[in-house]
Amino acid sequence: MVKGIVMIIDGMADRPIKDLEYRTPLEAADTPNMDKLAEMGINGIMDPIKPGIRAGSDTSHISILGYDPYEVYTGRGPFEAAGIGVEVIAGDIAFRCNFSTQDENGIITDRRAGRIREGTEEIAGSIDSMKLEGFEDIKVIFKESTGHRAVLVLRGMGLSDKVSDSDPKHDGKPPKEVIPLDDSPEAAKTAQILNKFVQKSYKVLRDHPVNQKRIEKGENPANVILPRGVGAVPNVPSFNGKFGLKSACIAETGLIKGIGKIAGMDLIDVEGATGGIDTDLKSITESIVSAAKGDNYDFILINIDGADEAGHDGEMEEKLKFIEKVDAVVGEIMKIDDIYFILTADHSTPISVMDHTGDPVPIVIKGPEIRVDNVKSFNERAAHSGGLCRIRGSDVMNILMDLMNRSKKFGA
Amino acid sequence: MVKGIVMIIDGMADRPIKDLEYRTPLEAADTPNMDKLAEMGINGIMDPIKPGIRAGSDTSHISILGYDPYEVYTGRGPFEAAGIGVEVIAGDIAFRCNFSTQDENGIITDRRAGRIREGTEEIAGSIDSMKLEGFEDIKVIFKESTGHRAVLVLRGMGLSDKVSDSDPKHDGKPPKEVIPLDDSPEAAKTAQILNKFVQKSYKVLRDHPVNQKRIEKGENPANVILPRGVGAVPNVPSFNGKFGLKSACIAETGLIKGIGKIAGMDLIDVEGATGGIDTDLKSITESIVSAAKGDNYDFILINIDGADEAGHDGEMEEKLKFIEKVDAVVGEIMKIDDIYFILTADHSTPISVMDHTGDPVPIVIKGPEIRVDNVKSFNERAAHSGGLCRIRGSDVMNILMDLMNRSKKFGA
Repeated sequence: MVKGIVMIIDGMADRPIKDLEYRTPLEAADTPNMDKLAEMGINGIMDPIKPGIRAGSDTSHISILGYDPYEVYTGRGPFEAAGIGVEVIAGDIAFRCNFSTQDENGIITDRRAGRIREGTEEIAGSIDSMKLEGFEDIKVIFKESTGHRAVLVLRGMGLSDKVSDSDPKHDGKPPKEVIPLDDSPEAAKTAQILNKFVQKSYKVLRDHPVNQKRIEKGENPANVILPRGVGAVPNVPSFNGKFGLKSACIAETGLIKGIGKIAGMDLIDVEGATGGIDTDLKSITESIVSAAKGDNYDFILINIDGADEAGHDGEMEEKLKFIEKVDAVVGEIMKIDDIYFILTADHSTPISVMDHTGDPVPIVIKGPEIRVDNVKSFNERAAHSGGLCRIRGSDVMNILMDLMNRSKKFGA
Repeated sequence: MVKGIVMIIDGMADRPIKDLEYRTPLEAADTPNMDKLAEMGINGIMDPIKPGIRAGSDTSHISILGYDPYEVYTGRGPFEAAGIGVEVIAGDIAFRCNFSTQDENGIITDRRAGRIREGTEEIAGSIDSMKLEGFEDIKVIFKESTGHRAVLVLRGMGLSDKVSDSDPKHDGKPPKEVIPLDDSPEAAKTAQILNKFVQKSYKVLRDHPVNQKRIEKGENPANVILPRGVGAVPNVPSFNGKFGLKSACIAETGLIKGIGKIAGMDLIDVEGATGGIDTDLKSITESIVSAAKGDNYDFILINIDGADEAGHDGEMEEKLKFIEKVDAVVGEIMKIDDIYFILTADHSTPISVMDHTGDPVPIVIKGPEIRVDNVKSFNERAAHSGGLCRIRGSDVMNILMDLMNRSKKFGA
């Protein structure tokens, strides 16, 4: 049976850059494999959500996987939590958190706690399952992520995602009081819980052994937890059930892994995947080829993050070079038989903007019986004259399922 | 900060015409500036509402400004009223009206009252604030527009826009009885009010001094008011608030001015703007350039109406020549620095149809960091191979806001 691969090069698309003679990094890069893919496939431009809408990586992937981000997405927290292995359930309220440093006057002196790297698991262990006075029925789930990052999940009745952040965003200020963002009793209750949580985290962590050692070494202690990026875990139908597929997700960042996880996909961890331009693309390639050639999966979602990172950093040369490296990965995937291979990006991250924009992204589909068009290179501008014209992220799975002859007829 | 200009040449698009060797007027016209704009920009075709839908100028502009015309638009009355300076509020029921001539037997002998031009302000003064027996709580606002045209606004509780016209559309008939168009008590009440209004207008105006003089001069008196084009004033969020812009509207007709006004835009009046092919394009150009170069506005909506008028009149040569004149205006706008300049039409008004059709219109966007495409002339057919492919009116503001780096990211 023919398989489907959707490969999303995060933030790869861009705007014309003067230093590249008004070409984009993807236009300027030497990408023989991507260009061959364009030549052998059907091409177009894609609006991840709709024209002009600035998609996040999360909302774009949600859309491409066939879910409506306006229904499913309330914030980043749930996906970050799921991405690091917290078993979230629909209705949970989840937050991203920072391990931060607070002084005796209650002022945040370092939002990243000296960019702490070690000991966070022990610290998290002291916070996880914490009971909060007056809210003993609410389950507190807390887990460390990479570096100074962590996630908090609140589980119980009567909670809401309509609450503000506690992170003051700048050092030198106290934690922001969490306030309810609507008039519901649920929001009021959740805000109270969070304020208690922040206060209690300081009490629990102030004299924590890990922090005592850090202070001895002259490092900033991770003595307070600051939640932000709230979201309610959505009730999404399983991706496999929805499309009748056995699916896997090969992603680098917790955010995209979390989307795969919440959609019920198998996560394939890749050794050496950093999410940066230094990531181990060889290792990623091996994982992809192995999953695609095996019998366990008939759909694989791939996200490679480095181009987006370079875009956010405004690093033109690094973005261009990383795209050239990814081209080799594309070349290996092209060697796999009996697949529909879709290559695209989740949004543009122009070097000039250093953030996502709503410019459309190129997309190509290669596989059996494709209506091959005249496009011969893979980039933002060549793509628009291809046979797909202009589609949306939400069209991708429908088109793929149809090509794979796995979709139901609507009508007679 | 970079500014945005959306210039809409009303009804400019057309269908191929045999007498033009199967070219459209826009294809046949000599438009070096528009063609240069196409060459420097990104091009596409646009469906003002959606493919095949015959848009009005009003519904198209509403859509392009980012509102849903299916939600916002119930009829032309509210926009005509706002366009001539009546301060309408959401919930008002507004009508276009004719000053007409009624004989002693109650027959309309001249729907346009001898195309009256003078004295309408005094006549309107006698109608404005009229009290209607049994409906003393309903405020009657009445104001003259140009020529034989006027507007009526009803304000109060329990009104509806589900009522018929009183205009019989042909001379030689009595005013049509206004009937409710649904079963609601509000529609019944509003129909009663309108019938009373028409009757009372005749009583008040029959012996009005302006009409006595007209009769003396052998002119048809404006002795009855016939409302039509009912609409409920919509509750629309302010355009400036919605997009975070300081906006101005430079339009010729009351209808488009009214849309700008109801959206909360500043209206810039232009001396000599007639809405016809005889309009003062030099004066319009000066207003545009002055507004675009000043500090008061970062968004300007422009509507120029002559091509639509020529289209409705079936005047091919005049339409073509007017487009050539507008080309000079485009040339002046292109000289302004630091703008995103969007040129399009609100619908097609083909010479052969003499009315609007649902054919898509060309659109071009020029400005910083645009993904310039290979299109080198601005017209209905060249446009479709451009980088925008096919978009909708409702995409325009999203795309512009994204290019201006003024839109919020949805997601992370």
